[in-house]
Amino acid sequence: MISNTPPPPYYAVIFSSVRTTDCVGYAEMNTLMNELALEQDGFLGMENASSEIGISISYWNDLEAIKRWKNNLEHQEALAEGQKRWYKHYKVRIAKVERDYEFLKK
Amino acid sequence: MISNTPPPPYYAVIFSSVRTTDCVGYAEMNTLMNELALEQDGFLGMENASSEIGISISYWNDLEAIKRWKNNLEHQEALAEGQKRWYKHYKVRIAKVERDYEFLKK
Repeated sequence: MISNTPPPPYYAVIFSSVRTTDCVGYAEMNTLMNELALEQDGFLGMENASSEIGISISYWNDLEAIKRWKNNLEHQEALAEGQKRWYKHYKVRIAKVERDYEFLKK
Repeated sequence: MISNTPPPPYYAVIFSSVRTTDCVGYAEMNTLMNELALEQDGFLGMENASSEIGISISYWNDLEAIKRWKNNLEHQEALAEGQKRWYKHYKVRIAKVERDYEFLKK
């Protein structure tokens, strides 16, 4: 679902990825990382979608929270495994959300 | 594909959406808007993926380019049509990309 984030400013980590053909264990890792992210201080929400590329956006209170998540040991192990097996290419963008607006059908 | 954006800073417009069941004309509008965005001054790239929600991220040189795109007449008409027919809920986030890094398998 669309994350119900607080009013800006807050941060987004945009993870865009292209996968290899090896999918063994990928879904499990992904679920585990989503669950683990939920438990982190400063975590605000996560949005995922995948087609030709995968896009996963996590939202965070501040840069410190992002840094802690980046340094989280289980997360680092998952990324190292990802580089070996699941990802052909990925790009991470750290961005400060300055403004947002929403449309909700009545 | 993953957009080959220049070194930060630049801007991202994150468009997260939930669709209605009406899909008539949606793909055509989407293709047209992607083509139109490509022609805009300050446009840097676009990434799309869709699962339970759709995520479309466009990258831009600066806030002025984003404002021009927002005010583009054809784009406004497409969004108005989208509110009437294709979108149940969407959220737009304007974010300044401060840092990025990349992994590319050898």
